Amino acid sequence: MTKLLRMGLAGGGPGSFIGAVHVMAAQLDRRIVLAGGVFSRDPVKSAEGAAHYGVKSWTSIDAMLSSGEVDFVCVATPNDSHFAIAQKALTSGVHVMSDKPATLTLAEAKSLRDVVRATGKQYGLTHTYTGYPLVREARQLVADGVLGRVRKIVVEYSQGWLTEAVSNKQADWRTDPSRSGLGGCSGDIGTHAFQLAEFVSGLTATELYADLGKVVPGRALDDDCNILLRYDNGARGVLIASQIAAGDRNGLRLRVYGEKGGLDWRQELPNTLTLNRHDGPTEVRHAGSSYLLPVAQAGTRLPAGHPKAMSRPSLIFTRISPIRSPRARLPWS
Amino acid sequence: MTKLLRMGLAGGGPGSFIGAVHVMAAQLDRRIVLAGGVFSRDPVKSAEGAAHYGVKSWTSIDAMLSSGEVDFVCVATPNDSHFAIAQKALTSGVHVMSDKPATLTLAEAKSLRDVVRATGKQYGLTHTYTGYPLVREARQLVADGVLGRVRKIVVEYSQGWLTEAVSNKQADWRTDPSRSGLGGCSGDIGTHAFQLAEFVSGLTATELYADLGKVVPGRALDDDCNILLRYDNGARGVLIASQIAAGDRNGLRLRVYGEKGGLDWRQELPNTLTLNRHDGPTEVRHAGSSYLLPVAQAGTRLPAGHPKAMSRPSLIFTRISPIRSPRARLPWS
Amino acid sequence: MTKLLRMGLAGGGPGSFIGAVHVMAAQLDRRIVLAGGVFSRDPVKSAEGAAHYGVKSWTSIDAMLSSGEVDFVCVATPNDSHFAIAQKALTSGVHVMSDKPATLTLAEAKSLRDVVRATGKQYGLTHTYTGYPLVREARQLVADGVLGRVRKIVVEYSQGWLTEAVSNKQADWRTDPSRSGLGGCSGDIGTHAFQLAEFVSGLTATELYADLGKVVPGRALDDDCNILLRYDNGARGVLIASQIAAGDRNGLRLRVYGEKGGLDWRQELPNTLTLNRHDGPTEVRHAGSSYLLPVAQAGTRLPAGHPKAMSRPSLIFTRISPIRSPRARLPWS
Amino acid sequence: MTKLLRMGLAGGGPGSFIGAVHVMAAQLDRRIVLAGGVFSRDPVKSAEGAAHYGVKSWTSIDAMLSSGEVDFVCVATPNDSHFAIAQKALTSGVHVMSDKPATLTLAEAKSLRDVVRATGKQYGLTHTYTGYPLVREARQLVADGVLGRVRKIVVEYSQGWLTEAVSNKQADWRTDPSRSGLGGCSGDIGTHAFQLAEFVSGLTATELYADLGKVVPGRALDDDCNILLRYDNGARGVLIASQIAAGDRNGLRLRVYGEKGGLDWRQELPNTLTLNRHDGPTEVRHAGSSYLLPVAQAGTRLPAGHPKAMSRPSLIFTRISPIRSPRARLPWS
Repeated sequence: MTKLLRMGLAGGGPGSFIGAVHVMAAQLDRRIVLAGGVFSRDPVKSAEGAAHYGVKSWTSIDAMLSSGEVDFVCVATPNDSHFAIAQKALTSGVHVMSDKPATLTLAEAKSLRDVVRATGKQYGLTHTYTGYPLVREARQLVADGVLGRVRKIVVEYSQGWLTEAVSNKQADWRTDPSRSGLGGCSGDIGTHAFQLAEFVSGLTATELYADLGKVVPGRALDDDCNILLRYDNGARGVLIASQIAAGDRNGLRLRVYGEKGGLDWRQELPNTLTLNRHDGPTEVRHAGSSYLLPVAQAGTRLPAGHPKAMSRPSLIFTRISPIRSPRARLPWS
Repeated sequence: MTKLLRMGLAGGGPGSFIGAVHVMAAQLDRRIVLAGGVFSRDPVKSAEGAAHYGVKSWTSIDAMLSSGEVDFVCVATPNDSHFAIAQKALTSGVHVMSDKPATLTLAEAKSLRDVVRATGKQYGLTHTYTGYPLVREARQLVADGVLGRVRKIVVEYSQGWLTEAVSNKQADWRTDPSRSGLGGCSGDIGTHAFQLAEFVSGLTATELYADLGKVVPGRALDDDCNILLRYDNGARGVLIASQIAAGDRNGLRLRVYGEKGGLDWRQELPNTLTLNRHDGPTEVRHAGSSYLLPVAQAGTRLPAGHPKAMSRPSLIFTRISPIRSPRARLPWS
Repeated sequence: MTKLLRMGLAGGGPGSFIGAVHVMAAQLDRRIVLAGGVFSRDPVKSAEGAAHYGVKSWTSIDAMLSSGEVDFVCVATPNDSHFAIAQKALTSGVHVMSDKPATLTLAEAKSLRDVVRATGKQYGLTHTYTGYPLVREARQLVADGVLGRVRKIVVEYSQGWLTEAVSNKQADWRTDPSRSGLGGCSGDIGTHAFQLAEFVSGLTATELYADLGKVVPGRALDDDCNILLRYDNGARGVLIASQIAAGDRNGLRLRVYGEKGGLDWRQELPNTLTLNRHDGPTEVRHAGSSYLLPVAQAGTRLPAGHPKAMSRPSLIFTRISPIRSPRARLPWS
Repeated sequence: MTKLLRMGLAGGGPGSFIGAVHVMAAQLDRRIVLAGGVFSRDPVKSAEGAAHYGVKSWTSIDAMLSSGEVDFVCVATPNDSHFAIAQKALTSGVHVMSDKPATLTLAEAKSLRDVVRATGKQYGLTHTYTGYPLVREARQLVADGVLGRVRKIVVEYSQGWLTEAVSNKQADWRTDPSRSGLGGCSGDIGTHAFQLAEFVSGLTATELYADLGKVVPGRALDDDCNILLRYDNGARGVLIASQIAAGDRNGLRLRVYGEKGGLDWRQELPNTLTLNRHDGPTEVRHAGSSYLLPVAQAGTRLPAGHPKAMSRPSLIFTRISPIRSPRARLPWS
């Protein structure tokens, strides 16, 4: 019997969206077990969370980290505490899997990088969409030169759920600068789009020109982002992210164009990847198929045509070092 | 802390497809825990299965049932043992969640019905596709009269994976009459299509005319099925199922037409339901949306636009009684 | 300057749907000119039709045929007069392009075949959907063996416009046995589906089992058809046609499955052809692309991505001889 | 019999793409007849064009305009002669239907405006995509307030045909500044996207920030455009146009988001219009349906589900006055 990794959850109590997702995802492959958590800053709510999951709760992050009962901490709190919890965990010898953003400022990010290097512990950010088999396939196709040199990237993340002024647990912290940090839509979903484009293309953004809007009256953070980019090989990019795209649901889409063809992937149809060849028929690849590249096979649990569960989305450990520095690449900085 | 249901798995050892699916699904909501299982008739393989899941294995079904450590047994063995295991479990006071088919013959099915009634235990069949939120929505829309009287049903389940003569664990038992029973494609996936049509329409098939083919040379069971049906309200139906539809993946699709419009649902795009109205624009409903009917809301874990995990597909307990009797409605009988 | 073919129109007066389509289509390539017509049995309406098109009208079919001013007649009248007009034209030395059905009975069809042979004139039926570039491509791919031996055909033609009892020029003659003949839905659109399947597959249907319904109360002809077929190479087929598929528009779709893959074409998305390969990615071909086969190139006027005009749909001259005889292949006979 | 408008064609000779399209479109409704043309600057080629169409050719634009045989001239020449031909025609008392761009510079455009006003003749630009029934529907839905205030527009026009350095009649003049003017991709298709966004939204662009690229080595004009916009009501916009989007065909797509929902229309699927409502199911409208608004009904010739011919695309007369002046709104100026 393989030894299970023991996960401690920070956040994820009653009303949380992502906490339950992390717990489900963590257990999919029976490699990780939820040992317990600090499910809320409020001890009563934390106890409720523990009861919901049938595990123990600690009264503080410090108590959890020093218990010796968790191998890594999964940070699912609002943005403002990500850095502090991660720093504590790493210096306590506990690995970290953190929701993005890693920190609220560039200075903190550099500091975190130094802690990671000094402690030698693992640190990962849950850029969940990179876990899809066909995103892996796309990345490998680009790396293999199937598109030739990449010339253009169009990435969108379009949601409509903040079209009106709303108040609920999910909306409140995301629109509150004191908990969310400098970025609203840009930080919440623009970062996913930004990271996905770099992940698949293998390029690094070096310049950008952004038009960030606070569209809904009274909103303190951006809820609509339109950004022109340049990548390190000279390719142009467009990043469109919105939370006021009324009627849209979770429209993350990436298109990468090269000299020989273009790739098109949509999160709402995640199990197909379209490869438009410049000089031939369009090719559509399906998750779960035997013709996929090994990187895509590795992330698949079910045969083709079966909607996939989350494909290990929240548990992809990626070393953060080196954190790249150009200020320009952080839309909200 | 809610008391967890303890599940014992019958089957699902190394190389199994559905066993792992059941285990993942069972644990999604943290209401069920895998207590252990008899993962294979071969004790070595069974032990391997237990090690994989980090649980115990019993040496026989009888031992598992009499252990007092399982509240229900999940039957994921090849078809020929479904009935015997279910019967044993029920008479041992253990509830049953069985893969379909319930039995290999109608006589056995009637006998099973009697056992269910006599023991008063729960018995469910994993007609998994009925667990999708939008299948529930569709059923309710029909029940609410949105389509008017149902006049026509077209249901398809089209796969291509048995296009050629292949030999592997999945293919072997499904094409072997001694383990699969009388139905090949008809029993394996035709039944899903058949059941889905009845489930959503609320109708019962009363007559059918079937053209079952053994297309691949040497195949002992049907691999292609084309069936005309009549339902109890006079509606006509067409059921198309195939495992030699080369290039298709898992193409389950249901269309129900009534006097006022038609519903269209596809398993490969399970989170949208299309309602074509006779006298107005087409309407597309999205899983996770607040405007859905309560039955659909109940089966949803994530907001709109996020691919859903399996929606508790394999754990929908439905009483089997009464098993309806007309021989005509069992395509393989 | 190329000599233009002079077309005489029979039918197609005020309120006609197909007359105007034929006139537009005939002129697309400037190879044909509308010389005039007998636009209605009613001389006043015929004159109205002539005025609409800016051409002359004759007072009778005989007058038109003997005028020496038409090279061919385009027969766009209700079904009951197709045969008589065609026979007259052929024996007058005038070529014929007729709407389907060629005749109302098999005996008439055989008689028509004899007239075609005796006169040596051209006779064509407007099976319009065979004119699409990608239908031509599909046919050639099958002929080239890309699918291997054809094993299964699923063809559908699903409309909803006769969901209710309606009365208008289009509906009235189609639901009236005295003008439409023995077939309602089967003759009006089932024939298109039937012919398309044979055209693309290169196979001939030899047996069928049909369930034709008169679903709307009071309807005298079938409005819903569900048919199982066998083709001359042993392949199975399913033909579904309906005019009471509420909410559907003009859903003609053809799927052909062989040993190596399957083709999928939809009339509502006519400029893409999907080729699902058994052992590789799906391939999507686009009308207007340079990689298409010559037969598809020949039928294209615009570059890829521009919706195509009608692709000369109604003017594909095909010799009718030999009219194949098996009664079984005429769904309405 | 209605008097037909006599059209004279400038350009459109052998090898022309758009000339033949204009001729087909002009004749669809039998309101216009091609009287003749000056099909090329080369008299031999012009005569070839005339022979192809079966009409006369004139030896010069002046001769055509003074012949008294044309009511309007259709200008289908390369961009550099649009202005001169239009000016001559208007002052000769002949109406003008011109391909875009109207002129090569803003100064010429203002001068043209003055000529239109002084002569009182009709002048139209063939912004062809505004002729689609569902584009009309979309515009009316916005005007009717169905979306509420418009907040965001995303418009794309993505082609891949200039992915490589190519030389042919279509490519040559479009990539040659002396014939095409200052704009490459921006002028050729960016203008369509720009105009479509204003046409449907009813808004006027007031500011823009453009990143125009000459991606293919040696190209003299832009072949990739990425533009951020602001509209007169404060709405943000993104315009993406490209001719190096390898593998794309003719991907014109418009999304308009307001306070209550969003519209989505794609030129490659022109007969559906998607209306995503913020608080309800998605609505899909189909061309040819009786529930459409009168503006959409007016532009439709065929019932729903039949691919539409060109919907009078090239013959929509729109007064040019007033030409709006802000330099900012001309991407290529």
